[in-house]
Amino acid sequence: MADNTILIKNALILNPTVNYQGKKDLLIKNDLISEISEDISGENVDKIIDASDKILLPGFINTHTHLSMTLFRGLADDLSLDEWLNDNIWPMEANLNGDYCYSGALLGAVELIKSGTTTFSDMYFYMEDVAKAVEESGIRAVLSYGMIDFGDEEKRKAEIEENMTLFKNCHDTADGRIKVFFGPHSPYTASEELLKEVRKLADETGMKIHIHVSETQKEINDVSAEKGLRPFEYLDSIGFLGPDVICAHCVWLNDDEIEIIKKNDVKISHNPCSNMKLASGIAPISKLLENDICVSIGTDGASSNNNLDLIEELKTASLLQKVSTLDPKVLTSDEAIAMGTINGAKALGLEDEIGSIEVGKKADIILIDTNNANMIPDSSKISSNIIYSANGSNVDTTICNGQILMENKKLTTLDEQEIYKKARKAIEELKALL
Amino acid sequence: MADNTILIKNALILNPTVNYQGKKDLLIKNDLISEISEDISGENVDKIIDASDKILLPGFINTHTHLSMTLFRGLADDLSLDEWLNDNIWPMEANLNGDYCYSGALLGAVELIKSGTTTFSDMYFYMEDVAKAVEESGIRAVLSYGMIDFGDEEKRKAEIEENMTLFKNCHDTADGRIKVFFGPHSPYTASEELLKEVRKLADETGMKIHIHVSETQKEINDVSAEKGLRPFEYLDSIGFLGPDVICAHCVWLNDDEIEIIKKNDVKISHNPCSNMKLASGIAPISKLLENDICVSIGTDGASSNNNLDLIEELKTASLLQKVSTLDPKVLTSDEAIAMGTINGAKALGLEDEIGSIEVGKKADIILIDTNNANMIPDSSKISSNIIYSANGSNVDTTICNGQILMENKKLTTLDEQEIYKKARKAIEELKALL
Repeated sequence: MADNTILIKNALILNPTVNYQGKKDLLIKNDLISEISEDISGENVDKIIDASDKILLPGFINTHTHLSMTLFRGLADDLSLDEWLNDNIWPMEANLNGDYCYSGALLGAVELIKSGTTTFSDMYFYMEDVAKAVEESGIRAVLSYGMIDFGDEEKRKAEIEENMTLFKNCHDTADGRIKVFFGPHSPYTASEELLKEVRKLADETGMKIHIHVSETQKEINDVSAEKGLRPFEYLDSIGFLGPDVICAHCVWLNDDEIEIIKKNDVKISHNPCSNMKLASGIAPISKLLENDICVSIGTDGASSNNNLDLIEELKTASLLQKVSTLDPKVLTSDEAIAMGTINGAKALGLEDEIGSIEVGKKADIILIDTNNANMIPDSSKISSNIIYSANGSNVDTTICNGQILMENKKLTTLDEQEIYKKARKAIEELKALL
Repeated sequence: MADNTILIKNALILNPTVNYQGKKDLLIKNDLISEISEDISGENVDKIIDASDKILLPGFINTHTHLSMTLFRGLADDLSLDEWLNDNIWPMEANLNGDYCYSGALLGAVELIKSGTTTFSDMYFYMEDVAKAVEESGIRAVLSYGMIDFGDEEKRKAEIEENMTLFKNCHDTADGRIKVFFGPHSPYTASEELLKEVRKLADETGMKIHIHVSETQKEINDVSAEKGLRPFEYLDSIGFLGPDVICAHCVWLNDDEIEIIKKNDVKISHNPCSNMKLASGIAPISKLLENDICVSIGTDGASSNNNLDLIEELKTASLLQKVSTLDPKVLTSDEAIAMGTINGAKALGLEDEIGSIEVGKKADIILIDTNNANMIPDSSKISSNIIYSANGSNVDTTICNGQILMENKKLTTLDEQEIYKKARKAIEELKALL
């Protein structure tokens, strides 16, 4: 079969690694970036995109979300985490099935593609249905099954079995766009036995681990009461931590725990909008960055955010660090761009494939239109306009694995209106089941 | 002349005052809302808008900005307030002229209209040029000239003269869309004599007052050192405060000052993105709301934000209060909607004309398209989807004073591309003058 080629002309490239001076042409051959230079010939190229008024950057990487929960957007707000979870989210989740999760994941995929995210890391249930949505949408994903055993041995075995089945059936499928991780839910919902078993299986299989840690003060208190240790101390003490563990939230950390994270090269997924909206607290991100810890970004589920816009999330992250430290120089726009791209790739162990614009890497690329009021003037620092002025709606082209998923704001792989209709129907049915 | 009529059919109305149940038709006659009911006939109506998939709400009111500074978007970021102002903004401002301010104001007006703001309150220089931009764009504005005397008597007289001339030339012009306020810059840049003279002239003329107060800790320290009183104590002691004073920022307030604000019925403009970005601090908004103080919202200039998206500003306001109080129930989405609409109208003394959807009020109306991924599902609380999920790009129609300024995302009064071109040229010229 002949190569499939796309040539992007005259793009200003914003990249977290190599700094390309001036405008460049970029050639995509099949799933890869094959050339970046001054003037690439358009002869024999299948498609040419004019990016003269556009900024080209790596597709954003959302390292912590629950995509099917997009169905629960706006279902319950302005509530405590307990009321939100116990009285609203869990009763709805009790009636979920694979079809509903598929509908929610497709709705979320539309939002991700439209706002420039090409890779997401998910933890939820009915993950094979989420994989189906990933396969169809053309997006890239790391999927983990959210394992909860509350100390029950039968449940533990079944949960691990479920995550392993997901691995067997889905890992490296969809042209390699899907990877599967373990998803032990958290140190307070997964037993010590479960966590130790996951560690052992991770070492055997090479599967990485996605977990929630230290989200709320209550969690710190509960884990401390039960284990006599704070969450990261406890996880360290049972040998659970390592460079293959990505921890979401990490709001309440003391200096010893930051040292534990650093020592184990644990990866962080920062979720500022969710932490603010649920009043969980402010994660000490600038301190983590000072310690050269790998901090990536995630939106958490749309039900506690309430959107999946990674640019908005990065602006919020930056502004929140500045005001909470009273230092306007922390978490600069360049650092935020890195957090949303290459750090996400490192967190997921995919830094050889994605997270930056480099020859040989996967063609996960977005174009942002600069010809809009909120992006002008555009003669100063590009990263500033992206992080502080833009939002996801400024993205006009999204390419993943060399495939165009959106061009000029029109989706190519998914039928938006059909997905909206199904998502509306799904949430109505779920509400009726309560 | 015959009446000009616009009929909006089948709209779901989100309103901070009267609660309309179900979908309604709304009739605009000239500049006013003339009827809201179940089924209004389209016969003899000049234009009909189908709002079946849309949410109708009052145009947003931005009570503190510097519109011409939109030219300085992205000029300097990740700096301390001093470096930002002294080394970057002030040197650029030294070369401003009326043409540049006009270009910047038009650029800002495009952004405001596109993101659903119909009224802004401005404080800057070359305000007659800003008035020209307001006149042409069809937006509504309260304009004040930023008076700074640093205790110099000649300068003081000239500054007051300038603000009074603006009043004489522009107040109640543009079909009543422009009002003029006094704009003493702040308690640390305007002398006690200037503030007292403004108070006297405000009482004589009925002009209201727009001022920056208590933005940074440095200001508190400086005013305390000079006056022996904190800023609000000082302003109260010289009889400056009253219900006609709108104070921007108000970050650093102790309980006595909150009491002073309440006693004087002073109006507040909260500017969370700017306060976060410049690391000024977190204003105690939930405490002000508990005290029934009128809190409205402003973006500040685009140079410290870096956009003019009021929906983003309201989300940030809500999330910041939740996390800083560790209480997820404060600043709900309904309160945020009020902050962005009716409270803004009250702050500007325009609550009889704008800020809510009611028969007899000015037709300042926006429509938000619900048929977009980030707005689905849309069956729960409307205000939640607007505040927590949407951003300005979801606005598809903007009407001010009965005139359509944008329909289906297309501007009707302004030439976007021409304005972008001029704004880009202006900033290049200003940079070359440094």
